[in-house]
Amino acid sequence: MSPQTYTQIVLRERPVGDILPDTFTIESKPFDAKLDPGSEQALVQITYLSLDPAMRGWLRDTRSYMPPVQIGEVMRAGGLGVVVKAGEGSKFSVGDLVSGTLGWTEYAVLPDKKLTKIIPPPGTTALDFLNTLGMPGMTAYFGLHDVGQIKAGETLVVSGAAGAVGSLTCQLGKAVGARVIAIAGSTEKCAWLEQELGVDKAINYKSPTFKEDFKNAVGYLDVFFDNVGGDILDFALTRLKKGARIALCGAISEYNSTKPKGLTSYLTLIAQRAKIQGFIVFDYESEYPRAIAEMAKALANGSIKRKFHIVEGLENAPKALPMLFSGGNTGKLVVKVSDAEHQAKL
Amino acid sequence: MSPQTYTQIVLRERPVGDILPDTFTIESKPFDAKLDPGSEQALVQITYLSLDPAMRGWLRDTRSYMPPVQIGEVMRAGGLGVVVKAGEGSKFSVGDLVSGTLGWTEYAVLPDKKLTKIIPPPGTTALDFLNTLGMPGMTAYFGLHDVGQIKAGETLVVSGAAGAVGSLTCQLGKAVGARVIAIAGSTEKCAWLEQELGVDKAINYKSPTFKEDFKNAVGYLDVFFDNVGGDILDFALTRLKKGARIALCGAISEYNSTKPKGLTSYLTLIAQRAKIQGFIVFDYESEYPRAIAEMAKALANGSIKRKFHIVEGLENAPKALPMLFSGGNTGKLVVKVSDAEHQAKL
Repeated sequence: MSPQTYTQIVLRERPVGDILPDTFTIESKPFDAKLDPGSEQALVQITYLSLDPAMRGWLRDTRSYMPPVQIGEVMRAGGLGVVVKAGEGSKFSVGDLVSGTLGWTEYAVLPDKKLTKIIPPPGTTALDFLNTLGMPGMTAYFGLHDVGQIKAGETLVVSGAAGAVGSLTCQLGKAVGARVIAIAGSTEKCAWLEQELGVDKAINYKSPTFKEDFKNAVGYLDVFFDNVGGDILDFALTRLKKGARIALCGAISEYNSTKPKGLTSYLTLIAQRAKIQGFIVFDYESEYPRAIAEMAKALANGSIKRKFHIVEGLENAPKALPMLFSGGNTGKLVVKVSDAEHQAKL
Repeated sequence: MSPQTYTQIVLRERPVGDILPDTFTIESKPFDAKLDPGSEQALVQITYLSLDPAMRGWLRDTRSYMPPVQIGEVMRAGGLGVVVKAGEGSKFSVGDLVSGTLGWTEYAVLPDKKLTKIIPPPGTTALDFLNTLGMPGMTAYFGLHDVGQIKAGETLVVSGAAGAVGSLTCQLGKAVGARVIAIAGSTEKCAWLEQELGVDKAINYKSPTFKEDFKNAVGYLDVFFDNVGGDILDFALTRLKKGARIALCGAISEYNSTKPKGLTSYLTLIAQRAKIQGFIVFDYESEYPRAIAEMAKALANGSIKRKFHIVEGLENAPKALPMLFSGGNTGKLVVKVSDAEHQAKL
């Protein structure tokens, strides 16, 4: 039995700085013929949605790696769902678990090619496909290995270390034998990073002694995996070893600012023959299967740990998204939209 | 016959911003036993000294790729000279033309291993070893090829294009079939770059329409070979193609500033999967012979053109060095110290 209506959340106006209550509008839509899947399409009931820092960038009307979300459009988001109706010739069956760019909505019709069927490997769950086996995991994996070129014995610094990408990067760094220094924004996060994830040292960037703590813990660094940008990146530039690599994954500290802080210490890049390199995880899509297999193994044997911060209810997504920028979450932030997965299994 | 005294110029105090009249002191030294070359050493009479933007960095007391010049020490400089006395077991003979880090002095005793004997290939002169076949040439060559990875058909932008490194980079870019846009600081320099060196377009960064001119001429760029840093680099960051490479060679605009301007547009590095990479030419020393042979051929057949800006007299070196930062020179800036080369040849 289909419901009479369903909820979706659309972009109302582009935020200039912080995401505000006015940024999004919650809409109730009739469950009508628009949700009938066409040829090689499927109707998906969304179960979980991923909240990622990159989403702030999708709200910005600038030249980027994908077009911005338009005003009045459903907010773009990666997620998981269950196929509840398959169109003619669709390769999916009712009950299939899928992932894809589903959006902030309870139901979505998508072409087959935009959906991936998920069969969690032993020792993993569907939710891992929004984290370790999904975009955050792939970002950590390829950013650290391909861009960062991390090697055993090197010193790796990770900013935003208590977030989804950061916490995985720390663990991947330890796995290759690097010395890992994590930067996070609270003593609780630092304790989790040191005690649960096993980083060599976690330092709190909100501490008044942060720069001294950084110098003492790091000395000089070989790889900086940066999720934060701004002041921390600028300071890290003064602590580069010869040949250092900065993998520029994100810049959470800058996403909400109208006037980004400048990097003033970039001249050290010359003296240290170092580089700052940006990357977008989607460029590595053809190599995902290899990385997913490796990460699934590590999840199953317990060598990679994960933590979820689950917010209940689609209507709470607009309030939850800003947590990524205020430091409100530890681990992967997701929104639980429905129990469809559970029902589909019955 | 040796002279009774000789001149050398030492660092008197570190400049905070611009190099000032008080920065250096000219000293007259007795031509005494200190100039007797020891075992495997040679006494060199300097003929020409190179003035390079990197020298501003050597005055700064910070962690860098080589130690700073100390207060009271002869100013470090690359140069050419003639061996006038060879110590016991030296591999050099009187009259040998040599290059090396000689310093702002008329005479210097150096160990053999710090000197390189020069025999200019046909179609080149000794002075080319301070330019196309020396540090500037090697910097252009390895910066453009190894760091910039320039390819035919790509768009190359070169800042500080009328300088020694810049003008060579432009020509190397044309040689591989790139579209080359040069940035310089006067209409005369732009005319020289377009008419003599054959760049596709030269633009004047002092023009009030510079940013529009840049957009119109460049569109988006694949490689930015940057000698200037600061505002131009920051603007170039907004004009990157996917996978763009910024070879950070120098930052003339920043060398004299006490507070460098920040790069505010670095977030584009992420969206465009681009990189900024610093380099130091000395890292490529083992590959110089190959590059020198290639460049010498290009000089001999006229496909690479060079221009020298010769300042007469060692005592004028302190006044000449700041020209590199004020835009006073077009082509390679050198100081002529003596005619020894000519005499040695007689």
